[in-house]
Amino acid sequence: MSIFNTPSQPQGLAGQFAADSAYAAVDVFIGTGGDGHCHPGATRPFGMVQLGPDTQHRHHRQAYPWCAGYRYEDDSILGFSHTHFSGTGHGDLGDVLLMPFTGPTRLEPGYPERALSGYRSRFSHEQERAQPGYYAVRLLDHEVDVELTCSDRVGLHRYHFEPGAQPKLLLDLRSSVYHHPGKNLWSRLRLRTPQLLTGMRETRGWAAGRQLFFAIEFARPLARHEFHNTETDVEYRGFRTPGREPHQKRVLEGRALVAAFEFDIPADQQLLLKVGISAVSEEGAIANLAELPGWDFEAQRQAAAQAWADTLAVLDIAADPALRSSLYTAHYHACQAPSLFMDLDGRYRGPDNAVHQAQDFGPGFRYHSTFSLWDTYRALHPWLLLTQSGERNSDFINSLLASQRHSPHGILPVWQFHGLETWCMIGYHALPVIADAYLKGLRGFDAQAALAAMQASAEYAPYGGIGDYLQYGYVPFDKEGEGASKTLEYSFDDWTLARMAEALGEDSLAARYYLRAQSFRQLLDPATGFVRGKSSEGQFRLPFDPTAAGYGSDYTEGSAWQYSWYMPHDCAALVGNLGGDAGLVQRLDQIFEAETNPKMYSHMEDISGLIGHYAHGNEPSHHIAYLYAYAGAPWKTQQRLSQILPMQYASGPAGLAGNDDLGQMSAWLLFTALGLYPVAPGSNEYVIGRPFVQRASLTLPNGRVFTVRAEGLGPGHDYIGAVHLNGQAHDVSYLRHADLMAGGELVFSMQAEPNRAWASAPAARPYSQTPYPAA
Amino acid sequence: MSIFNTPSQPQGLAGQFAADSAYAAVDVFIGTGGDGHCHPGATRPFGMVQLGPDTQHRHHRQAYPWCAGYRYEDDSILGFSHTHFSGTGHGDLGDVLLMPFTGPTRLEPGYPERALSGYRSRFSHEQERAQPGYYAVRLLDHEVDVELTCSDRVGLHRYHFEPGAQPKLLLDLRSSVYHHPGKNLWSRLRLRTPQLLTGMRETRGWAAGRQLFFAIEFARPLARHEFHNTETDVEYRGFRTPGREPHQKRVLEGRALVAAFEFDIPADQQLLLKVGISAVSEEGAIANLAELPGWDFEAQRQAAAQAWADTLAVLDIAADPALRSSLYTAHYHACQAPSLFMDLDGRYRGPDNAVHQAQDFGPGFRYHSTFSLWDTYRALHPWLLLTQSGERNSDFINSLLASQRHSPHGILPVWQFHGLETWCMIGYHALPVIADAYLKGLRGFDAQAALAAMQASAEYAPYGGIGDYLQYGYVPFDKEGEGASKTLEYSFDDWTLARMAEALGEDSLAARYYLRAQSFRQLLDPATGFVRGKSSEGQFRLPFDPTAAGYGSDYTEGSAWQYSWYMPHDCAALVGNLGGDAGLVQRLDQIFEAETNPKMYSHMEDISGLIGHYAHGNEPSHHIAYLYAYAGAPWKTQQRLSQILPMQYASGPAGLAGNDDLGQMSAWLLFTALGLYPVAPGSNEYVIGRPFVQRASLTLPNGRVFTVRAEGLGPGHDYIGAVHLNGQAHDVSYLRHADLMAGGELVFSMQAEPNRAWASAPAARPYSQTPYPAA
Repeated sequence: MSIFNTPSQPQGLAGQFAADSAYAAVDVFIGTGGDGHCHPGATRPFGMVQLGPDTQHRHHRQAYPWCAGYRYEDDSILGFSHTHFSGTGHGDLGDVLLMPFTGPTRLEPGYPERALSGYRSRFSHEQERAQPGYYAVRLLDHEVDVELTCSDRVGLHRYHFEPGAQPKLLLDLRSSVYHHPGKNLWSRLRLRTPQLLTGMRETRGWAAGRQLFFAIEFARPLARHEFHNTETDVEYRGFRTPGREPHQKRVLEGRALVAAFEFDIPADQQLLLKVGISAVSEEGAIANLAELPGWDFEAQRQAAAQAWADTLAVLDIAADPALRSSLYTAHYHACQAPSLFMDLDGRYRGPDNAVHQAQDFGPGFRYHSTFSLWDTYRALHPWLLLTQSGERNSDFINSLLASQRHSPHGILPVWQFHGLETWCMIGYHALPVIADAYLKGLRGFDAQAALAAMQASAEYAPYGGIGDYLQYGYVPFDKEGEGASKTLEYSFDDWTLARMAEALGEDSLAARYYLRAQSFRQLLDPATGFVRGKSSEGQFRLPFDPTAAGYGSDYTEGSAWQYSWYMPHDCAALVGNLGGDAGLVQRLDQIFEAETNPKMYSHMEDISGLIGHYAHGNEPSHHIAYLYAYAGAPWKTQQRLSQILPMQYASGPAGLAGNDDLGQMSAWLLFTALGLYPVAPGSNEYVIGRPFVQRASLTLPNGRVFTVRAEGLGPGHDYIGAVHLNGQAHDVSYLRHADLMAGGELVFSMQAEPNRAWASAPAARPYSQTPYPAA
Repeated sequence: MSIFNTPSQPQGLAGQFAADSAYAAVDVFIGTGGDGHCHPGATRPFGMVQLGPDTQHRHHRQAYPWCAGYRYEDDSILGFSHTHFSGTGHGDLGDVLLMPFTGPTRLEPGYPERALSGYRSRFSHEQERAQPGYYAVRLLDHEVDVELTCSDRVGLHRYHFEPGAQPKLLLDLRSSVYHHPGKNLWSRLRLRTPQLLTGMRETRGWAAGRQLFFAIEFARPLARHEFHNTETDVEYRGFRTPGREPHQKRVLEGRALVAAFEFDIPADQQLLLKVGISAVSEEGAIANLAELPGWDFEAQRQAAAQAWADTLAVLDIAADPALRSSLYTAHYHACQAPSLFMDLDGRYRGPDNAVHQAQDFGPGFRYHSTFSLWDTYRALHPWLLLTQSGERNSDFINSLLASQRHSPHGILPVWQFHGLETWCMIGYHALPVIADAYLKGLRGFDAQAALAAMQASAEYAPYGGIGDYLQYGYVPFDKEGEGASKTLEYSFDDWTLARMAEALGEDSLAARYYLRAQSFRQLLDPATGFVRGKSSEGQFRLPFDPTAAGYGSDYTEGSAWQYSWYMPHDCAALVGNLGGDAGLVQRLDQIFEAETNPKMYSHMEDISGLIGHYAHGNEPSHHIAYLYAYAGAPWKTQQRLSQILPMQYASGPAGLAGNDDLGQMSAWLLFTALGLYPVAPGSNEYVIGRPFVQRASLTLPNGRVFTVRAEGLGPGHDYIGAVHLNGQAHDVSYLRHADLMAGGELVFSMQAEPNRAWASAPAARPYSQTPYPAA
C-alpha cells in the first residue's frame, strides 16, 4: 500500500488550490533534467532549507550534471538532503542526508545499477510528486513513501512504512553534492535525547571552511542507534571515545560519519521528523526548530503552499497553457535566491566565517546569502525589484552591505553562499544590483555607506586584476586571465557606480567613474569589430581566434563571438566600432546565423543553447537579441526573440536550455514574455522586445498594477505593429521604470509582418552613454 | 653584538629580585631534558599562554620525547610558539609558531643537522636564559636575540637584530607539537592592517576539532608580507582567491599555511610584537590584546616576574640549595595547570566545542582547562588547595562543573585541555578533586550540583566499561581493556563520592557508593597477593604475569607489581590480602628490591624511574612508599623516601625522573620534602613520611602559617626519632588537614637510626576504610 495508490491521494495538489490556479501551474520539475540544474525539493520563498532528493552517485564527484544533486534522468535516490542550489553551474551543499529504509542496515550507498547493493533505492516518476513547498516519492526498494515539506529553516519529513515494517533511518554525513576526497574537514554527531540528535559538518567545497549545524527532532523516541566513523586514511584518530559498540556511542566526531537509527513499529505506519539547520551552532539549529512547532504535516504543507501562492499572486498571466506553466515556474525559480541565511535569533555567519548579529545592522534586518551576482544582476534582481516587497529587496542590499563590512577583503560579495565567498566568476556585480535598486527608488539602506562599499570593491587591487585595470586602463592578458571580459564587465559596473554617485550628488566621484566606464573602448578593435584581449604593451593578442573561449582565453565562459557586444551602458560605442547601425545589425545577424559546429564550445560546460554563436544557456548572450533596438531595428529583436524563446524554454524536465543560474534564465523568460528586458540595469529603462503572453498583470510593490496586453497574438504574429501605453502611442523601443511603476497598461498590437519604421529613429532608441569625453 | 654580551645584561635576573630570593631559586630548565617533558617558555601562573621555543623536527611526529616541543638536548630551534604543556606524556599544542630571521626567506624548517637548510636556527645554552615569565635566546644562524614574556592571554616578543640587518619573520601554521599528517583540519590568515594580522587553526591532535584563534600586533608596520599555501594532497582547492602573488594576498585559508614578513630596518634594531590567543574567535583574540597594552617589554617582564614572585611567596624554604631550587621549581611547575582558558570578555569553548559565557555560570567565574586528572588528583590538587586562594581553587572546581554541564556526555572531564576532552587515561578522577576540596572546606561552588555531576560521571555506562563495572561489580578483562586498574581507581573514586555524599547528608547515596568503593575486593587474589584481571565469568586471567603492563594487559601504564597496592581508602584490605602487616611490609620490600631488567618496561614510555618494580616516573607508584605506615612500619617509609627522593629528583634539565605530568611529580616532591603526603585525597589526612628541608613555612589561603622543621637533619639522619605538633608529641603517622590549616609548627627530630616504635600501633596508622560490610 502506498500513498500514491490511495483514494485520498495526500500527495495530490494541496487542497485549497484550483486546477487553474497559479500554484497549480508551477511545474517544479522544469529544469530538473537536461542542463537546467534545478532541484525539485521542498522550499519556501527565499528559504534557507531546500529539502529534497539527491540522486548523484559517489562516482559523480564534482560532476557538472549533478550540480543540484538531482537529475530527472536518474532512477535511484541516494537520500534526502536539506540544502540545494537550484540551477547553478558549479556545485556544493546536499547537507544532512537522510534516507529511510527497511531491512538490513547498509552503511554504504551502493550502486544505482544494483538494487539493494546499498541504502539507495530505485524510484519511479510515476510515484513521485512535487509542488512548491512539497515533495513526495516512493522508495521502491524499501517500500517507503516519503513526503517532505518545510518552513524557512526547518525541513519536515513524513515517511509511510508498510504495515508491520520496522522503520529505519540512515544519516550520512559523508555525502554531499559535488563531492571529492578531502572535502569533509570535520563533522560531529551528538545524540542528546532519544528524540533529539544534533551535529555539524565543515567542508571545503565551493566555499572553504563552511560549517553547517543541524538538529534532528524525531516525533517518536529512537529504539536504537549506531554511530560509525568509516575514515581510514588518517594516521591518528585520538583515544577511544565512550561506547565500545556503535550503538553505545552517544557522541562521535571525525571526517566520515554515518549513523543508522531504528524505531519501534508504529501503529500508524508513519514516522515523522524535523531537521533544523544553522550556520552558527547546534544550539542555533535547536532553537530554529521552534519555527515549525507540532507534527501536523498537512498543516505545514498547506502553510508552505500558501507562502508560494502569495508569492505567485503578484503575477496574473493569460497565455498558452505551456507558456503559462513555464512562466509561473520561472517566477517560482526566481524566488528561491538570494535566500535567508540567519537563525531565528538573528545570528548568522559572514564572509569572515565569524558569527554576527543581524540586530547590529539594523532592526528587522534579515541576512540573506546565495548571491550568484554574475548571473543575477542582469535580470533577476530587476525582476525581484518589481515583484518583491521593499523590505525583501532592502534585505538583499543590506545583506550585501553587511557582507562587505564583514569581508576580510572589505569588498562586496562576488559569488557568495551560506555567507561565504567563493570567488566564482568575474566582475563586481553587486554594484549594478545596488545602484539599480537605488536609482529605482529603493531606500531601505544607507546609500552613502553603500556607495563607499561599492567604491571599495571597485578599487580593491588584489581582486581580479583590478590593480592592472587601474594601471593600464584595461586588464592586460599577460597580467590576468580573461582580461577582455573583465574589462567589459568592470566598465559596466563602473558606470553603475557613476550613476549612483551622480544621483547622490557626488559629482567628482561620478565623473571619475563615468570615465572608468569607458575603459572597454581600449579593447575595441575596429578592424575586426570584436573586443579583443590586449597586452600590457598595448598589442592585441595574436593570432586572434574569435571562437576561443574560457580558460586560457580572454573571455570568461564565452568567446569573442559572445562577449564583444557587452557595453550595455554605451551601445553607441558598439555601433561606432562596427561602422554604424547597419554594421551592428549585420554582425548580430552573423552571430545568430553562423554555421557553428555544436561541439565548438563543448569544452565549456556552461556554453549551451546554441543558435549560431548565440548561447542562450549562458549569461553573456542574454542581452544580445535586444541590441538590434540600439541600431534602430527593433523588428529584428522581435524576430530573434520569436526564434529564441520557443527553442530555449519548454515544458518538462528538459525545459531549460542552460543552468537556471539561481533564477537568471527564468527572469529572462519572464521579462521577455512580457515584452521587456533590462539590458542595462541602472539605466531605469527596459528595452522593448515583443510579448509572448496574451496578458500579464504585475501587482507592483507599491500596490499598483501594470498590465501588458498583446492584441492579435497568435501563430505567425511575431511582430509589433504598434505599442500604446495607457492609450497613448508609444513609439520608442524602451519603457521607463517610472512609467511601469505608475501602473497602467502597455498594449502591443501584434502582426505577421514587421513594422520596420516603429522606434527606428535615433531618438527612439534605448539609453546609451553620452559621447566619450575627449582625452 | 648580542644582548648576551652587553654590560647591562637585560637578559639577566629581573632587577628587583635578590640572588637568594625564591624567584631566583627557580630553575626553569629543570625537567626540560631527560624524561621531564617540561617547557622553559614564558608563562604566567595558571596562564593561558605558554610562549617559548620549539625544537622538535618534522620527523619527530608524535614523538614522545618532544611532548613539550622543546628538549634541552637539542641544538637548534624551529621557532617560538604560544601554547605548550609542561610535563605531559602525550603531546599537542605548539600553536602560532613565529621565527624571526634574516637573509633569504626559507619557507621550510630545514634540518637540524644542516645549518640554514631552512628557517630553523642553531642555538647554544650559553646564550639562552629563562626565568619564570621570561625566556631569551640567541639564534646563531640568524644573529637575532629573542626575548619573550607574556600576560595571561598575550605573548610579547622582542627581537634584537644586528645593526643594518633587515628584520624578517616567519609564521608557520603547519607546525605543531606531536604533529602528524592530516592533523591540520583547516587554518586561516588575514592581514587586517599593516600592524594587525589574525588567523585560526583547527586541528585533530590529542583533542579533536580544536580551534585556536590568534591576533598578532606588530609594533611597527609591515613593509611586506607573503602568504603561502603549500598543501599538495588535495583534489580541489576552490577558485583563486584575490592576489596573484603571495605578497598580494591579504587573506588565505587552507591546511598548510605559512607566511613571511619583512620590516624596514629599525633605528633601534628592535622589533616587538604581541600575540593574543583565543578559543572563541579572531575578534576575541584581538580583544584579548588589551590585556597587555603598550610596548614596554621590561615593564611586562617585571609584571610577569612579580606575578610569579607573589605565587612563590607562600612558600618559605630553608634547605640544601639544590633541593631548595628543586622545590621552588616544583612549585613553579605546580602552578601552571589547570590553566586559564577564557577570553577577557568571559567567553570560552567547552567540551561540546561550543562557545559559552562565564558569567552564565556565576559572577567572577574564570574558566580553566588542562586537567590531567589521572595524575593531578593525587597530590597536585591537594597541594593547590594549600597554596592557592579559595577563588582560584573554586575556579578549578567550577570549571569542572561547567565542563560537565557542557559535556555532550554529561560527565566531568577525564583529561581535558583547551576546553576539549581527550579521553586520555582512565578513571573519573574529577570526583576526588571535588570531594577533597569540599571535605577540606572549599565552598565556592554548588555542592549539590557537584554531587549530581559526580554521580552522573560515575554512572555513565558507555565510558570505560562503567556499564560492566556496575553489572559485574568489577571491570571484566574480556569486556574492557585494563580492567584491573579501572576497577581499582573506580573504587577509590566511588569512595570519594561517598565521603562527600555523607558530608552532605545524602546517606543512602553515600551507603551505595561506600559499597561500590569495595569493588576492588573482587580482584584481590589472596593466593598471589596481587590484584588481578578477572573475566566476566569470574575467572582470574591465566597465565598470570605480574610484569605484564599496558596495552593488552589488565593494567594501565603499569603492571600488577605497580598497580596491586592501589586502594588508598582501604589499605586494611590490602593488609588483609597479604596476610597481615608483615605481609604488606614484605611485599613492599619485594617491590623495591626486585632485580629487574631496566628494559622490562621499556615498551611503556611512561614507566620510568625504576627502583625494582617501583616506577617513580609514573603515578601508580607515587603512594607506594607511604604504604609501610599502614602496616605500622613508618620507619620503612622514611627509609624508602630517603632512597627515592635523591634518586628521582635533581638539579638541571634531567632533574625529573619522569614526566612532570602538569605538576604531579612536582607536587609529590613538595609534599614529600615537607614530610607529608596525601595518600588518600578525601580522607583529610596526610601520611607522614620524613622531611628533607631544614624548615619550610606555608602561608595558607586562610592567612595562617604552617611550618615544618626538621631538627637534626643531615647526612645519614634519615629517620624520625620523634614528631611534635605545636610542642605536643605527635605519635601518629598522619596529620589531619584541620591541624595543618590551624597553622603552627610540626617539628621532626631526625636521627640516624629508625625509631621502629613510633606510630607503629594500629591506632596510630592513617585512615583506612571501615570493615567491608557483610554481603
